Amino acid sequence: MVGEKVRSLKTAKAEKADIDAAVQLLLKLKVDFKQMTGQDYKAGCPPSENSCVSDSGPLTDAGKDDEDTVDPWNVSTTNAKGVDYDKLIVRFGSSKIDKELVDRIEKVSGQKPHRFLRRGIFFSHRDMHQVLDAYEKNKSFYLYTGRGPSSEAMHVGHLIPFIFTKWLQDVFDIPLVIQMTDDEKYLWKDLTLDECHYFAVENAKDIIACGFDVNKTFIFSDLDYMGSCPEFYRNVVKIQKHVTFNQVKGIFGFSDSDCIGKISFPAIQAAPSFSNSFPKIFGSKQDVPCLIPCAIDQDPYFRMTRDVAPRIGYPKPALLHSTFFPALQGAQTKMSASDANSSIFLTDTPKEIKSKINKHAFSGGKDTEEEHRKYGGNPDVDISFMYLTFFLEDDEKLEKIRQDYASGALLTGELKKILIETLQPMIAEHQERRKQVTDEAVKQFMTPRPLNFNLPA
Amino acid sequence: MVGEKVRSLKTAKAEKADIDAAVQLLLKLKVDFKQMTGQDYKAGCPPSENSCVSDSGPLTDAGKDDEDTVDPWNVSTTNAKGVDYDKLIVRFGSSKIDKELVDRIEKVSGQKPHRFLRRGIFFSHRDMHQVLDAYEKNKSFYLYTGRGPSSEAMHVGHLIPFIFTKWLQDVFDIPLVIQMTDDEKYLWKDLTLDECHYFAVENAKDIIACGFDVNKTFIFSDLDYMGSCPEFYRNVVKIQKHVTFNQVKGIFGFSDSDCIGKISFPAIQAAPSFSNSFPKIFGSKQDVPCLIPCAIDQDPYFRMTRDVAPRIGYPKPALLHSTFFPALQGAQTKMSASDANSSIFLTDTPKEIKSKINKHAFSGGKDTEEEHRKYGGNPDVDISFMYLTFFLEDDEKLEKIRQDYASGALLTGELKKILIETLQPMIAEHQERRKQVTDEAVKQFMTPRPLNFNLPA
Repeated sequence: MVGEKVRSLKTAKAEKADIDAAVQLLLKLKVDFKQMTGQDYKAGCPPSENSCVSDSGPLTDAGKDDEDTVDPWNVSTTNAKGVDYDKLIVRFGSSKIDKELVDRIEKVSGQKPHRFLRRGIFFSHRDMHQVLDAYEKNKSFYLYTGRGPSSEAMHVGHLIPFIFTKWLQDVFDIPLVIQMTDDEKYLWKDLTLDECHYFAVENAKDIIACGFDVNKTFIFSDLDYMGSCPEFYRNVVKIQKHVTFNQVKGIFGFSDSDCIGKISFPAIQAAPSFSNSFPKIFGSKQDVPCLIPCAIDQDPYFRMTRDVAPRIGYPKPALLHSTFFPALQGAQTKMSASDANSSIFLTDTPKEIKSKINKHAFSGGKDTEEEHRKYGGNPDVDISFMYLTFFLEDDEKLEKIRQDYASGALLTGELKKILIETLQPMIAEHQERRKQVTDEAVKQFMTPRPLNFNLPA
Repeated sequence: MVGEKVRSLKTAKAEKADIDAAVQLLLKLKVDFKQMTGQDYKAGCPPSENSCVSDSGPLTDAGKDDEDTVDPWNVSTTNAKGVDYDKLIVRFGSSKIDKELVDRIEKVSGQKPHRFLRRGIFFSHRDMHQVLDAYEKNKSFYLYTGRGPSSEAMHVGHLIPFIFTKWLQDVFDIPLVIQMTDDEKYLWKDLTLDECHYFAVENAKDIIACGFDVNKTFIFSDLDYMGSCPEFYRNVVKIQKHVTFNQVKGIFGFSDSDCIGKISFPAIQAAPSFSNSFPKIFGSKQDVPCLIPCAIDQDPYFRMTRDVAPRIGYPKPALLHSTFFPALQGAQTKMSASDANSSIFLTDTPKEIKSKINKHAFSGGKDTEEEHRKYGGNPDVDISFMYLTFFLEDDEKLEKIRQDYASGALLTGELKKILIETLQPMIAEHQERRKQVTDEAVKQFMTPRPLNFNLPA
């Protein structure tokens, strides 16, 4: 094409100097192009892998549209009701957790569905029906979830996947692995390896305080486990061989100036999805199905994992996705430990909890009591009401609160009081349980060892 | 600049259609450039990290010029005498091993320099004087070399770094670590993990047969060691945090369609350069100096390592670089195990050795005996003579062969016979020693354990 241009200029009788200048500029662009990309420039042939599509929907940049941004590092929306989760299901190519699936979980487990299922807090899934099909045929599965330990301070939002995972462990009676990605936090944050590892152990105590069964649960720090399990590293390398930079660039938005640790990290979060990454638990079995309960922002990792799995001879993990836990200031962002005013921490005193909610929790109420009584409040944007949907177990009571708030019978101050009185004992009890987590218990949870469950034949 | 061009075309009264076409083409190039690189194109401002220069010379693409290509995956030259090593020293920014350094090694070690030093086969170094300075002050150092186990078949060329490393171990009485990069071979070749690991163990037997001291030598497979030493993984992650994709692209020529395993692998070859990667040997000491004897094509890995080292608080490793061992067909390429006719394998019988040399070894002799007697041969391009410089210990005998061949007194057939009679017993003895390497011995060499040497205070 450069040749055509040059010929065309010549025909048009442009000055020779201009032709030369055009040729030089075009050649320079091509040289710089090659220098940057390592590839010869070909007009009309942009790189193809950038836009690869897998069976689980488009792999690339699915987490962003005009209104919402959702990826492992950013969650935000312009909508006060929060992210549009129905739209997210379409964009991510996952499936809605509908009434049929909730009913089926109730039937198979023989337990009343957890409030997170009843209320659409876990709202999306991949292949959950397959997991239940297998379970009904007496084929067990295992749970995998995780936490990025970037500080000592965990907040109530961090508990959501763990509360739900504990329920799944209890009702299905299955093993669970919990990955603490201290290596990831070292790569992404301005922290030392020792700090990240320390946070991993401290956070593990909060996770243990959720009540997991030590006989069925293995918690691991990547920094420890990579160096103590060759089978885990083998799976990491297998995954790394089957994912290109173009792919992680498309999925995670990495750029050429990102460090090579970030670029290869997704394989480390993918590896626990395959049962032979845990030989002490599953021996050499590589086909024990895996179910991953996590917040929807982690889905890019597992879209990649599901894309790779069949190419390395492993089953795809199934997923259950939760919504985000909103910040005190409103549902436009999720609760973030790096913004103390946006968060209720697991270490907060009853007084701090009361003060933060009264001061910061975004209200859907009207400006004056008179207006509120007359027009009613809006529970759909009210943070206190949203938090109650996460933590108040009684469905009828919750519905009455919703109606009373919407009608104006319940004032914002009264609603906040109900939330405060729900959270204060819940967090105090968590603190009490955490105090009882001994170093010995942490060591036990974090030691690779056989777990007590029946591996199907 | 694009703007200028367009203005200049307009002034020159080129047809409008041509101007539009030129503008479209330039814009398209810029768009494709951005799509490929994630950066806006700026004429005259090629990306800076791509051409970063470290204190050890230019990091990028230094291994290629009009005549020679030298990188970890390609070695070739158009010159029958082989790669121009003096030019390579300038391009890589290393230092020549001159007479002064050889004399100093003799003085410090108290031993006659190895023939590889006397004959310029190890021809280039980085910081060898610093290693000797420290050694003279009773500060020990350790040796690190390695092998990429891509097949069972090792050839005589593969022995060069090991023969020399054994000599260094003997004369300096220091510990040695040998990395078998089975993970690398899995990532680059169409092989399974098990095959690569098997080749690592088989190749280790050939390496052990070189006579290393089991009390001072640790041989490790990456696939095993990564999963058994958290300290090693910690160093890998540290390095991976401090190297960008732009850097490895510049140094190794990786592209966006390379897998993320290749992109992050250089950190794994870098990590053994730091003593705290081997806690069983060095405890938590992170400042034991490291000396790496290797072929010059591996230098890109260690340019990167030396660039990273001060940024993560570790000393830079020193290096000793060897020339390549030429293919039977001529010094334009190095001996390659994937081309059976180019190689003399460590498993070849005396008959095969004789036949290969007679049939394939490129000759610097004349076409007829009469011409050869009259004009003499050219030892500088003669493969048999080159091989003798590697393996014939006696300097005087070698010099006499050179003179006789150059004068025409020695015929090509006679020269080949000398080489055959040098290699046949050498390889037979290697085979005999390899036979005596038991599985127990391999296990011993490959077990992380304390080594027997005096760690300086």
